[in-house]
Amino acid sequence: TRSGVPEAVLGDGKTPGEIADLASTAVETTGRAIVTRIDPPAAAAVRRELATDAPEATVRWSERSNWLVATAPEFERPDLDATVGVVTAGTSDAVPAGEAAMLAAEMGAAVTRISDVGVASIARTIDAVDRLRDQDVLVVAAGREGALPTVVAGLVDTPVIGLPVSTGYGHDGAGEAAFSGMIQSCTTLSVVNIDAGFTAGAQAGLIARQVADARGDDV
Amino acid sequence: TRSGVPEAVLGDGKTPGEIADLASTAVETTGRAIVTRIDPPAAAAVRRELATDAPEATVRWSERSNWLVATAPEFERPDLDATVGVVTAGTSDAVPAGEAAMLAAEMGAAVTRISDVGVASIARTIDAVDRLRDQDVLVVAAGREGALPTVVAGLVDTPVIGLPVSTGYGHDGAGEAAFSGMIQSCTTLSVVNIDAGFTAGAQAGLIARQVADARGDDV
Amino acid sequence: TRSGVPEAVLGDGKTPGEIADLASTAVETTGRAIVTRIDPPAAAAVRRELATDAPEATVRWSERSNWLVATAPEFERPDLDATVGVVTAGTSDAVPAGEAAMLAAEMGAAVTRISDVGVASIARTIDAVDRLRDQDVLVVAAGREGALPTVVAGLVDTPVIGLPVSTGYGHDGAGEAAFSGMIQSCTTLSVVNIDAGFTAGAQAGLIARQVADARGDDV
Amino acid sequence: TRSGVPEAVLGDGKTPGEIADLASTAVETTGRAIVTRIDPPAAAAVRRELATDAPEATVRWSERSNWLVATAPEFERPDLDATVGVVTAGTSDAVPAGEAAMLAAEMGAAVTRISDVGVASIARTIDAVDRLRDQDVLVVAAGREGALPTVVAGLVDTPVIGLPVSTGYGHDGAGEAAFSGMIQSCTTLSVVNIDAGFTAGAQAGLIARQVADARGDDV
Amino acid sequence: TRSGVPEAVLGDGKTPGEIADLASTAVETTGRAIVTRIDPPAAAAVRRELATDAPEATVRWSERSNWLVATAPEFERPDLDATVGVVTAGTSDAVPAGEAAMLAAEMGAAVTRISDVGVASIARTIDAVDRLRDQDVLVVAAGREGALPTVVAGLVDTPVIGLPVSTGYGHDGAGEAAFSGMIQSCTTLSVVNIDAGFTAGAQAGLIARQVADARGDDV
Amino acid sequence: TRSGVPEAVLGDGKTPGEIADLASTAVETTGRAIVTRIDPPAAAAVRRELATDAPEATVRWSERSNWLVATAPEFERPDLDATVGVVTAGTSDAVPAGEAAMLAAEMGAAVTRISDVGVASIARTIDAVDRLRDQDVLVVAAGREGALPTVVAGLVDTPVIGLPVSTGYGHDGAGEAAFSGMIQSCTTLSVVNIDAGFTAGAQAGLIARQVADARGDDV
Amino acid sequence: TRSGVPEAVLGDGKTPGEIADLASTAVETTGRAIVTRIDPPAAAAVRRELATDAPEATVRWSERSNWLVATAPEFERPDLDATVGVVTAGTSDAVPAGEAAMLAAEMGAAVTRISDVGVASIARTIDAVDRLRDQDVLVVAAGREGALPTVVAGLVDTPVIGLPVSTGYGHDGAGEAAFSGMIQSCTTLSVVNIDAGFTAGAQAGLIARQVADARGDDV
Amino acid sequence: TRSGVPEAVLGDGKTPGEIADLASTAVETTGRAIVTRIDPPAAAAVRRELATDAPEATVRWSERSNWLVATAPEFERPDLDATVGVVTAGTSDAVPAGEAAMLAAEMGAAVTRISDVGVASIARTIDAVDRLRDQDVLVVAAGREGALPTVVAGLVDTPVIGLPVSTGYGHDGAGEAAFSGMIQSCTTLSVVNIDAGFTAGAQAGLIARQVADARGDDV
Ligand SMILES: Nc1ncnc2c1ncn2[C@@H]1O[C@H](COP(=O)(O)O)[C@@H](O)[C@H]1O
Ligand SMILES: Nc1ncnc2c1ncn2[C@@H]1O[C@H](COP(=O)(O)O)[C@@H](O)[C@H]1O
Ligand SMILES: Nc1ncnc2c1ncn2[C@@H]1O[C@H](COP(=O)(O)O)[C@@H](O)[C@H]1O
Ligand SMILES: Nc1ncnc2c1ncn2[C@@H]1O[C@H](COP(=O)(O)O)[C@@H](O)[C@H]1O
Ligand SMILES: [Mg+2]
Ligand SMILES: [Mg+2]
Ligand SMILES: [Mg+2]
Ligand SMILES: [Mg+2]
Ligand SMILES: [Mg+2]
Ligand SMILES: [Mg+2]
Ligand SMILES: [Mg+2]
Ligand SMILES: [Mg+2]
Repeated sequence: TRSGVPEAVLGDGKTPGEIADLASTAVETTGRAIVTRIDPPAAAAVRRELATDAPEATVRWSERSNWLVATAPEFERPDLDATVGVVTAGTSDAVPAGEAAMLAAEMGAAVTRISDVGVASIARTIDAVDRLRDQDVLVVAAGREGALPTVVAGLVDTPVIGLPVSTGYGHDGAGEAAFSGMIQSCTTLSVVNIDAGFTAGAQAGLIARQVADARGDDV
Repeated sequence: TRSGVPEAVLGDGKTPGEIADLASTAVETTGRAIVTRIDPPAAAAVRRELATDAPEATVRWSERSNWLVATAPEFERPDLDATVGVVTAGTSDAVPAGEAAMLAAEMGAAVTRISDVGVASIARTIDAVDRLRDQDVLVVAAGREGALPTVVAGLVDTPVIGLPVSTGYGHDGAGEAAFSGMIQSCTTLSVVNIDAGFTAGAQAGLIARQVADARGDDV
Repeated sequence: TRSGVPEAVLGDGKTPGEIADLASTAVETTGRAIVTRIDPPAAAAVRRELATDAPEATVRWSERSNWLVATAPEFERPDLDATVGVVTAGTSDAVPAGEAAMLAAEMGAAVTRISDVGVASIARTIDAVDRLRDQDVLVVAAGREGALPTVVAGLVDTPVIGLPVSTGYGHDGAGEAAFSGMIQSCTTLSVVNIDAGFTAGAQAGLIARQVADARGDDV
Repeated sequence: TRSGVPEAVLGDGKTPGEIADLASTAVETTGRAIVTRIDPPAAAAVRRELATDAPEATVRWSERSNWLVATAPEFERPDLDATVGVVTAGTSDAVPAGEAAMLAAEMGAAVTRISDVGVASIARTIDAVDRLRDQDVLVVAAGREGALPTVVAGLVDTPVIGLPVSTGYGHDGAGEAAFSGMIQSCTTLSVVNIDAGFTAGAQAGLIARQVADARGDDV
Repeated sequence: TRSGVPEAVLGDGKTPGEIADLASTAVETTGRAIVTRIDPPAAAAVRRELATDAPEATVRWSERSNWLVATAPEFERPDLDATVGVVTAGTSDAVPAGEAAMLAAEMGAAVTRISDVGVASIARTIDAVDRLRDQDVLVVAAGREGALPTVVAGLVDTPVIGLPVSTGYGHDGAGEAAFSGMIQSCTTLSVVNIDAGFTAGAQAGLIARQVADARGDDV
Repeated sequence: TRSGVPEAVLGDGKTPGEIADLASTAVETTGRAIVTRIDPPAAAAVRRELATDAPEATVRWSERSNWLVATAPEFERPDLDATVGVVTAGTSDAVPAGEAAMLAAEMGAAVTRISDVGVASIARTIDAVDRLRDQDVLVVAAGREGALPTVVAGLVDTPVIGLPVSTGYGHDGAGEAAFSGMIQSCTTLSVVNIDAGFTAGAQAGLIARQVADARGDDV
Repeated sequence: TRSGVPEAVLGDGKTPGEIADLASTAVETTGRAIVTRIDPPAAAAVRRELATDAPEATVRWSERSNWLVATAPEFERPDLDATVGVVTAGTSDAVPAGEAAMLAAEMGAAVTRISDVGVASIARTIDAVDRLRDQDVLVVAAGREGALPTVVAGLVDTPVIGLPVSTGYGHDGAGEAAFSGMIQSCTTLSVVNIDAGFTAGAQAGLIARQVADARGDDV
Repeated sequence: TRSGVPEAVLGDGKTPGEIADLASTAVETTGRAIVTRIDPPAAAAVRRELATDAPEATVRWSERSNWLVATAPEFERPDLDATVGVVTAGTSDAVPAGEAAMLAAEMGAAVTRISDVGVASIARTIDAVDRLRDQDVLVVAAGREGALPTVVAGLVDTPVIGLPVSTGYGHDGAGEAAFSGMIQSCTTLSVVNIDAGFTAGAQAGLIARQVADARGDDV
């Protein structure tokens, strides 16, 4: 589309049947279906629907990060000469970070995952500094107090997109503390909504495309 | 610094004397002083202090956007082959938008102001589409309901940084409605804090530097 | 009633049996039952109850918008010479927008649905301008950042009632961002509660009746 | 303008000089200047400026409601065959209610003030019922708990616009309780922001124009 | 107890078995068990437990208001020469209003229910004025915007305790608007928490006891 | 008035001149003027105005609690056979507690102040128990965490009205924590708004009047 | 670990299988598994898994406080010469208080439970004063208005850690009132998040270790 | 006092005269006056008052941290064999951190300041690790996103008290983001209110006293 970001189906609040129909139509019309927040029964429904409607389509499904991508054989994913790093503190960041990584990859970026570098063990964060500096743009996910993007942005001169994750309970739980902390960060961050891995990946993908374009890619 | 963003003095809550001292030191040690949220008496104090301490320094002051930049003759501002657009709805966005434009420029980007394109007169927003698409990255400021970045991001495939402005009174006034709206946008945005022109400009500057670097600039 | 708005049963939090009883009584006493937020089992219960109690009643049920209207054969719906436009950005606005359209219609207005004109594709919003200007009053529904009523109110000189929809997750999700944005709109709106399609339709119906009355309708 | 509502200058946060300039320009270009939230020194500045720039202009100033309207001799205010009632509980509603009344009048409506009918003395509210029913549209202002528009909307079948006023201290003071109460009203209301008399008057004016138009006015 | 209010078991979050045990112990030790927020399965469990442990106990259960009171034959409920009125707008106030009425009655007051007097039909509120003035103290329940206690307190010189009810959805739903409105009331109210019928009834019972005591009751 | 509570002038936000006029009128028409939240210059203005308009009036002014009461010689304050205790933790509760005490006294109750019994030194709270139990109704003021009314209500079987005071800074400062704590109290309280000494005193006065009436007073 | 607090598995949001795997690995690698917020099915799953993987391990499970600790035979729990008191108002504090007690004990402290000393019966609180003063550090849990830690801290010169519990409904329910009250306490407290028994126990354990160390323990 | 923390005068909201009187009385009765949040005019007033009332008293005043301590010659400050570290990110933490350091020192602890170790330059934080580990207890102050205590608590096994500072503007500014982040920290912290340096210092002092006591100090 004109806005530069691929269409996707948000699985939340839709029945398996509705998701399967939308995915099948997307494969047929655009060559690719991207579904996020899809649970196993809905993923199975999509596979069944495509087995009939588009038997040659390829289906990738992340059970861990709850996304599914189906592509028609003729679909050509863009391939950008630009890198996106997706950084996480711990395993509870898997869903939004996985969404971000998938979307940036579908937009054509070369995506690297940098995991388990939470600030509770700051030495591990610092050990990752070279891998962090190697990327063209970083998405940094964190829950609870959300301090990781602040620390990372102080270590690199790469643009950092903060992705707050809805972990934590009690006062300002469900990601609100992480979100507010990133918004108030003493280092330079721009931020997306709590759990908005899709938006973080899309923004990283748009920046990657500008960089790739500048490198001479044919976008 | 390692984080890629120039140091600045936040004038809020400091006396003219304190600001003048910090600015003078910054010129002496780094060749440049950047001050934001500086009022006229503090700007005058800086000029007086520099007249003594660094008489050959150049002082630029924006009365409208409340920033001041002083540079020593030998200071070389970076010069990047990359563009940043700073977009505003109306005159009340001047302070944060001006901060963002100044900072991106101090980081070396070529900055274009695109003004008076608020969504209340959507035809003017649409008329600006070519200028909007011409930029490598956009900072879009808006107060009240903050709809402008959402509309702009639907018109371009450039990365857009939403900058909420503290206009509006009553329920969720002082920029909170604009902020929440940008965070919930149905198009792709990353967002900074209310009135955080400095952060928006810094993030745009970091992206511009990545693009310029890709174009072969020597950062 | 004296307040000019038909009585209705809010299905939320009632059992199918309770809803069926209330609906049956309403048909018997006033000739019409209006039920909102009714799920399929409750709709079935109403049909069964009426099959016994009022077999000649007509039942209309919107599975998509979760309302049901049953009328006795002798019931005469008012018929006003006035138009209400119900405008939506996308499919997730169906429930409250459908409630609003049903209620305005039951109050006698001629209702037009103007759909899929969300601001992410602003050209489609603008293409709808003639249809928008043709109405006597507009209800404009929107979720996420809720920018659509703001843009529409800038395009027309018709009164616009903003109807925020509870889409969106994370910070100020569930319609709060849309609600605050409409309240802070830089164009002229009056607003109803999140998902309050009933109230929006009622207010539009009251305005339509004033207009029809002025046109010489016998209210 | 296309949106149907006259331009106005919001005095809040502007210097007397700025307001005077904007007012003078407005009189010159459109024949009328409307200023809201203007304090006595700014009103005096406008008078001085117009004494020079447009000596034949007429200036009306409400010290109580903080608005000023200046018109050139040739300016023709619209004159609509439609009525707007502006209803208040007590004297603390004067500023926003006065703004609403002024704006509806400037849009051409015949405005009636219905005052001192707060719900603490419900008999007085009920005594006003005929005057309330006589209007084509009502703006009902209330602070503290904001119950008045709810009660009025139960007494009439006229459309009621709730205007919450920023009285009250402590928990949810400054109009938040009144605002939330109007949004949750058990009768039919649409609502504007706290103290947004301008918006309430504009919305009432737009409705009045539809009614007048239906009556055969030439808008 | 020293605090003057009978002990009660809050059923919420307890299993039927736990509730039955606590109720049985209460009957045995104090002659009476009061349980609030008890659902039908728990009420059945209490009956079964008491059938074994205290077969001569009397059990009263309100399915509508979710309370249960069991008394041993020898238990003597106090009997005060003082009246408590429990006032409601509509049927959705049944649970907390019923709790309040039960508790005031268990404390010995003569309780009168005054129902269906909501402010949407203000004439019915006013028709109730004599019954309202007849009471020594009033508990007035209301949901949505919660205006009823404000209006009642303006009609009587009896002390009024506002009891906000968790009806309403959207912005400040679940009783928050009613609560804030009662706290900001322009008439004299003291208020209890949302849905805290128990506390409202206890406070009314304490006031009734002071009045009865003054009348010469032997408390 | 019908509502049983004397009229008063809220000084906040009014000029000395306005307050003096309102007070003078009140003395003339009702024999008594009650002003709350009045600062020294306004108190002086009232004295000056009355010196002219009603030279024989008696003026009492509490500089500490910011209220003023003026009475005409012929005014007869009611005199009730009932007691109100006004309880405070420390000196920062003086303004709202003083307002409450003044109003209950003006309504005719015999008011006792019980001071410096905050829960930080719980032994002093307990030492006051006999004085606390001696009253017909208690108003208990507290700031910060607001625990005092909870502890007092556990010590007595008198009705307790919680009066939260706007002390405290930081998170939920300005009385919000005290307010929420009283609303959630594990003992029986009804509560008024933060700093609403007037309402607390009025409610205590209404209860005192019921008690006095029961004792055979002629109200 | 370097941070001084044992690792634990938070059971919330994990399947029984995942918890069993994590617990088994912890026993194998560190000699001990600590699981919090574990429900009965997950506890059974851990037992089954360990029956196979580590049949000689000892499993302790608190059904009431929802924790489980499994230790290998060779595991040596630290044993500190320092005491931690865990204080509760009533039975609803069991889960977080039990978590705190377990964790402090696993860190080696001698833990004493001081129960049923809520402020509604302040005499019982005061009766506990010697037991309270006997401890090196206190964790004080409380729900509803959360007044207990404030009162305790006024009775002792021991450091008190406030632990707010998520009891209470309505306005600022779910522990928010208790939390705010502890944060605003008029006595000296430091506070942890709502229901964060784990953190409270960990902090108490760290303090106990400092004390034991000072007493000459070999940590 | 029994609670173990010295009395202090909170200067906020008191006149210089009131502060001077309270300070003079404190010196006379307890040998020491501690005043926090005292501005220069009030500090001067205290000096003047003491010059008359207690000419031999010693006055220490921190202009930077806004506290003043006056001691009579015979006053013996306790002297504990225990250390408190007070850690700050930058200069804006001076007021609350200074309060904390002063109070812990007045309670007898040996206080070390560890400054300028904010997480934006994480290498400096890590360089401080030996000084951090040397303390018996740490108070860690931070504003904006408040990440510093989280990182420090991961580096040490000393108890850490988080002290949020009211820097930051916009969404959750004024310390709210720092506060929420510390409450949600993924490492072990207990927390005090925003800017509550006094409470943080008191809690650190109480812990230091327990440690000193264990080391054999005579408290
Ligand atoms: N307008 C601004 N908004 C946010 N951060 C700013 C602003 N101006 C300066 N800063 C940042 O704040 C730091 C200066 O803070 P200070 O030490 O208080 O002068 C700089 O290093 C910038 O990173
Ligand atoms: N009292 C008011 N409340 C809300 N909006 C207003 C008010 N007065 C003027 N306006 C609107 O604000 C615009 C003027 O803003 P400004 O450019 O800041 O003077 C006008 O075009 C009006 O639409
Ligand atoms: N519906 C209710 N709302 C508020 N408090 C209640 C309610 N029912 C019982 N209580 C109080 O809660 C206490 C019982 O709590 P629990 O020990 O959890 O059963 C009783 O002593 C009453 O004071
Ligand atoms: N009840 C609890 N509350 C807060 N934190 C906990 C709790 N139980 C475990 N933790 C912490 O959460 C971490 C485990 O999180 P997870 O990886 O999701 O199992 C542990 O290392 C503990 O630091
Ligand atoms: Mg775009
Ligand atoms: Mg950086
Ligand atoms: Mg009506
Ligand atoms: Mg319009
Ligand atoms: Mg009691
Ligand atoms: Mg009354
Ligand atoms: Mg640690
Ligand atoms: Mg203590």
